[in-house]
Amino acid sequence: MTPLASLGLRTRPADDQGPGRLEILDQTALPDDERWLDGSDPVAMIDHIVQLRVRGAPMIGVCAALSLACVAERGADAGALRAHARALRAARPTAVNLMGAVDRVLAALEAGGVAAVPGAARAIFEEDVALCEAMAAHGAALLPPGARVLTHCNTGGLATAGVGTALGVIRRAHGQGRIAQVWVDETRPLLQGGRLTAWELGTLGIPYRLITDSMAGMLMARGQVDAVLVGSDRIAGNGDFANKIGTYSLAVLAHHHRIPFYVVAPWTTVDADCPDGAAIPIEERPAQEVRGLYSGLRWSPADAPVYNPAFDVTPAGLTTAWVLDTGVLTPAEVAAGALRSRSERR
Amino acid sequence: MTPLASLGLRTRPADDQGPGRLEILDQTALPDDERWLDGSDPVAMIDHIVQLRVRGAPMIGVCAALSLACVAERGADAGALRAHARALRAARPTAVNLMGAVDRVLAALEAGGVAAVPGAARAIFEEDVALCEAMAAHGAALLPPGARVLTHCNTGGLATAGVGTALGVIRRAHGQGRIAQVWVDETRPLLQGGRLTAWELGTLGIPYRLITDSMAGMLMARGQVDAVLVGSDRIAGNGDFANKIGTYSLAVLAHHHRIPFYVVAPWTTVDADCPDGAAIPIEERPAQEVRGLYSGLRWSPADAPVYNPAFDVTPAGLTTAWVLDTGVLTPAEVAAGALRSRSERR
Repeated sequence: MTPLASLGLRTRPADDQGPGRLEILDQTALPDDERWLDGSDPVAMIDHIVQLRVRGAPMIGVCAALSLACVAERGADAGALRAHARALRAARPTAVNLMGAVDRVLAALEAGGVAAVPGAARAIFEEDVALCEAMAAHGAALLPPGARVLTHCNTGGLATAGVGTALGVIRRAHGQGRIAQVWVDETRPLLQGGRLTAWELGTLGIPYRLITDSMAGMLMARGQVDAVLVGSDRIAGNGDFANKIGTYSLAVLAHHHRIPFYVVAPWTTVDADCPDGAAIPIEERPAQEVRGLYSGLRWSPADAPVYNPAFDVTPAGLTTAWVLDTGVLTPAEVAAGALRSRSERR
Repeated sequence: MTPLASLGLRTRPADDQGPGRLEILDQTALPDDERWLDGSDPVAMIDHIVQLRVRGAPMIGVCAALSLACVAERGADAGALRAHARALRAARPTAVNLMGAVDRVLAALEAGGVAAVPGAARAIFEEDVALCEAMAAHGAALLPPGARVLTHCNTGGLATAGVGTALGVIRRAHGQGRIAQVWVDETRPLLQGGRLTAWELGTLGIPYRLITDSMAGMLMARGQVDAVLVGSDRIAGNGDFANKIGTYSLAVLAHHHRIPFYVVAPWTTVDADCPDGAAIPIEERPAQEVRGLYSGLRWSPADAPVYNPAFDVTPAGLTTAWVLDTGVLTPAEVAAGALRSRSERR
């Protein structure tokens, strides 16, 4: 592997210790421990994805591709790569980026053989960095100076190979003097806001305050939120989109308070073949995440019945604009079919 | 103390071990441990209230009154009782029931001396039981057969001396075959839903499923919620009311989805002197509750800036009906001043 590095992943060239390898920052150990784990083996990578040690729709696509590159460099044949690819593709059913990235590696494999796999994976990494830069530029321009913005889950340098989607916009806007403060939803049940976004913003020196998900409405009612920015795991052709559970409630609250609500995602998140939100599969996760923490700590009854959808769907009608790497789409453009048009894609 | 008992408190008569005493069920140890703590001393009771070992707007009023009764029986003079009362009154600034209960004990003290205090406290306990019965009867009649209802925080036998407010309605309605399922918001940051309401419903054999606060919107969008029932810590004269943080978001979500939204509280919660929600003081609590758990466990950065209001205010305009012990008030009745009329009080 040629050296690649982002906030949440790094590759190591071949050396005396062995062949080139991929490492991921264990996001379940943050913010207190920065622990790097080997992700060179797709089987291990699937476990990292399912256990959320690596997460973020664009990031897991990049990591899946790079893990295929590692085994390709270690001599795996085309059949083994195809089997790994199938298993990776199924690791998170809601995220379309994962399927897209794996399919691009497979296309390179079929066209150019095993030797073409590392280059395809590297291209996906580099493209994701560039997509983030483009989204950040388009999105930052939408925010007024001194904005107090609210975000959900983690959509930054841990969720992508670049500066992020929604959090990349916030980072760029902060650099332009447009951000007075970020309200960070803790994002139950997995606490990506409290654990990861708070850590990223602290590291970047961007002022923030952490809240529980249930506080967003009160802040909006008090005029403390100027815009809401979220990421997405899949955008349907009609503009409906899936994102971390809780996003839909924020969209309704923003609508009620007439606050702009932006979804920020690369074109790799758009599933033009998916007609609307009802067609997006929603992953349900283990009950223990709601009974307590993913770590296993529990505060509710051991046998408490639970409902734990990992994502919800926000309808296009509650969305002010879609901030893509290709530019900002308005509701009128989306209604006219802009997200169904493949010509808009890179 | 003559024997009194509810799910969350009990009194012990004088015996060989000493004078009569009050014990509270430590709500921070539930659902796994049923630990009873002495609450006979108002100083200890204030700590129990602040640390949320006992909670629920009606319940803390009852407990404060009974702790004054205990020290009265142990020979405290009027001056000491007045000093204890002042301190108790300030323990939770949002809950008007606490102030009301303490003021009633003080009135008995001034009118009948120290000997009148235990009887006044006992009357407050017994009245709260009766208020709950009346609310349960009025509220249950509002629910259709087979209703799937959503509730927030804990408003049952741990929050009152009786069957509860919102949860008392649900319990009564379940007994009448009106409840198919209860959706229980976990209620971050203090998790009263996950720890206490789940435990109460499990104990009562009422079907429920636990969710994170962020899931309520998705359930409403999918047609899975037929009504929302919440309690209150203070109802202003215009019908605005304070309740556990997150209640306001639920009210907006219910309004958006045209789902009935009921607040259930006794007349002791109505503060007719408080003109509207803007005049209700909102208690802010320690940052550690949002950085992690009240127990001190932390998952976000140790220095994460936090905003932690314990309550929010729901405007009258988002409320379908006010379920009081005296009956159900409609928006038109509240707008006409029903909550400002002292003649409505018992």
